[in-house]
Amino acid sequence: MVNFNFYAPTEIEFGKDAELKVGGFVKKYGKTVLLHFGKGHIKKTGLYDRILNQLSDEGISVVELGGVKANPDIELVREGIALCRDHKVDFILAVGGGSVIDSAKAIALGVPYEGDVWDFFYNGKTPLEVLPLGAVLTIPAAGSEMSKFSVITNGKYKIGYANDLMRLKFSILNPELTYSLSPWQTAAGVVDIMAHVMERYFTEETHVDFSDGMCEGLLHSMIKNGPKVLSEPDNYDTRAEVMWAGCIAHNGLLGMGRIEDWASHRIQMPLSALYDITHGAGLAIIFPAWIKYVSQLKPQPFIKFFTRVFNVPYDFDNPESVIKTGLELMENFYKSLGMPTRLKDLDIDDSRFDELAGLVTEKGPTGFLVKLDRDAVQEIYKLAL
Amino acid sequence: MVNFNFYAPTEIEFGKDAELKVGGFVKKYGKTVLLHFGKGHIKKTGLYDRILNQLSDEGISVVELGGVKANPDIELVREGIALCRDHKVDFILAVGGGSVIDSAKAIALGVPYEGDVWDFFYNGKTPLEVLPLGAVLTIPAAGSEMSKFSVITNGKYKIGYANDLMRLKFSILNPELTYSLSPWQTAAGVVDIMAHVMERYFTEETHVDFSDGMCEGLLHSMIKNGPKVLSEPDNYDTRAEVMWAGCIAHNGLLGMGRIEDWASHRIQMPLSALYDITHGAGLAIIFPAWIKYVSQLKPQPFIKFFTRVFNVPYDFDNPESVIKTGLELMENFYKSLGMPTRLKDLDIDDSRFDELAGLVTEKGPTGFLVKLDRDAVQEIYKLAL
Repeated sequence: MVNFNFYAPTEIEFGKDAELKVGGFVKKYGKTVLLHFGKGHIKKTGLYDRILNQLSDEGISVVELGGVKANPDIELVREGIALCRDHKVDFILAVGGGSVIDSAKAIALGVPYEGDVWDFFYNGKTPLEVLPLGAVLTIPAAGSEMSKFSVITNGKYKIGYANDLMRLKFSILNPELTYSLSPWQTAAGVVDIMAHVMERYFTEETHVDFSDGMCEGLLHSMIKNGPKVLSEPDNYDTRAEVMWAGCIAHNGLLGMGRIEDWASHRIQMPLSALYDITHGAGLAIIFPAWIKYVSQLKPQPFIKFFTRVFNVPYDFDNPESVIKTGLELMENFYKSLGMPTRLKDLDIDDSRFDELAGLVTEKGPTGFLVKLDRDAVQEIYKLAL
Repeated sequence: MVNFNFYAPTEIEFGKDAELKVGGFVKKYGKTVLLHFGKGHIKKTGLYDRILNQLSDEGISVVELGGVKANPDIELVREGIALCRDHKVDFILAVGGGSVIDSAKAIALGVPYEGDVWDFFYNGKTPLEVLPLGAVLTIPAAGSEMSKFSVITNGKYKIGYANDLMRLKFSILNPELTYSLSPWQTAAGVVDIMAHVMERYFTEETHVDFSDGMCEGLLHSMIKNGPKVLSEPDNYDTRAEVMWAGCIAHNGLLGMGRIEDWASHRIQMPLSALYDITHGAGLAIIFPAWIKYVSQLKPQPFIKFFTRVFNVPYDFDNPESVIKTGLELMENFYKSLGMPTRLKDLDIDDSRFDELAGLVTEKGPTGFLVKLDRDAVQEIYKLAL
């Protein structure tokens, strides 16, 4: 087990009608709030009105910035920073999924900083302070509601930045708010949640029995509840399983004491930047391809994974056969969720593989379990065709 | 899944030499520190000197209060409160196990409060503020390093109080500091850690798949690593598994969305108060007795527990037979750790059962899965004979 620091101070309010507590939460931190959201779905569902009423009841001034799209863009972040400065905003409330929260985190980073906010993502700048922020979550997937990460897109770059200062003061999670998600969004969320665990699970670090167990427990729950949440979209308990798992999957806990990998995420990211595909859908394609490549070099973590997580019977005569069987089960599972498992399912061909691999490895090889250079990454894209 | 609030902001610094960071941590919060510890074991091991040097290097003034014993007493807490007021202490650093941290929490509660600190434990008082505090942990067991609980003994009463304001700012966990624990302390810690999970596991609340999985993962790790930590007391990784599990077992996470029980803890507590027995040892006796009693009325959670945690094969013809088999495995496991499993192992007879049951139920029935009145509690003591 490797040394670690664990710090996840975000307060989680979870359950039915939880969003009705938002006024009290915001009041603790600010008087003038930037209300940040997406394309206006929250206005159709009535969530927008419920939140505005809450904030108004507490005497909180509201500045609005909607329009966040999937793979949130640096331009809207810059607009948000200017808006916060103009209106002396002292708190940001993100209402939406991971894209909205990531965009809000980037705004919170940028407001007290003199230079351009992209410096944090691309140029290794470290912030001294960050505007406080909170969220009402509507899409369980990215785990941004309790994580230290923000991922922002700037042209051909989709880059993540991590800092504990960006952790939210609170996140409000009501599974009922997720009933109206499309099957596609729901399934992509489940894939993303599982990927956050798998990025941490695949390690050669030993003596991580407890965190292995937590990871496996979360994955078992998603394998059980993923299909169910699609067939019963209004089932509170199933939605709750997914929403809570999504929060803990990425708050840092499951990776403590382990050496994490993250190559699959980095190989997926430029796909989203260049082709604007859903992150979770991209992961359903890239993760199996990454496993195919890496397990040839280091089979052990994958034999354990497929034995314990997908319940493939351990083969004492030919342990590595577990991987092949397991990969089939995994891809069938993604397909059962309506997810793509090959690039061709999203009409992506091999014409930009070299460019994609170049973006992934621009600052050096990626991943940890196996360090992947530009050629290796290109091989993984080929395996994903 | 029931609604919940989850808030565990304590920063955990975990690993080899972690205690060498204590100066930097304390400096963030205070200038005059109460250094609170037990019977002086930390002076023999050199930990005391390492910490004092660290604090001195940061220019922090130190006021000392040692002498905390197991089942920490209200009198020393009161002494600590007076000391803090006299010296204008602005931060408390607990160095020790759960008793020392619980005592420190009670001091932190009492310093800003005009009345007597026992009001919080016995009279339902709610604090408005609490002195900030942190810890260097030396005994993995109580989980106080990341929990909201403090348990204090006052004559015949041993009572717990919970409040998020008492959560530590930081806890420093170095598994090497636990190498010198006796087999008895080590084993009692493992039992206590497992009990914190079991108190949360035994519920009739359904749709708690993910938290079930985390609980089971932690218990599996203790069943594997508990005996190993006794046979290899200097094995870093095994000590680390126990220490990290102990921290997460009681920070609240594993109970989220569930309805917790806690009868076994409450039935054990007056045993510690009246007979001054080790909390973990008492739990190794009381928990199986509680299961014997409660599983007759509600077998389902226990069939699941013994099937999943102790790997008893599910009996499709006679599911309840799993409980009997499982209880034997559980008691044999405790015995293998050198723990008692009957009151007579600690020379306790039935002469004070009525008094004990009266203390447990003084404010009404105890537990949740089955509400236990005075007679039922007395039955459980009898089953523990």
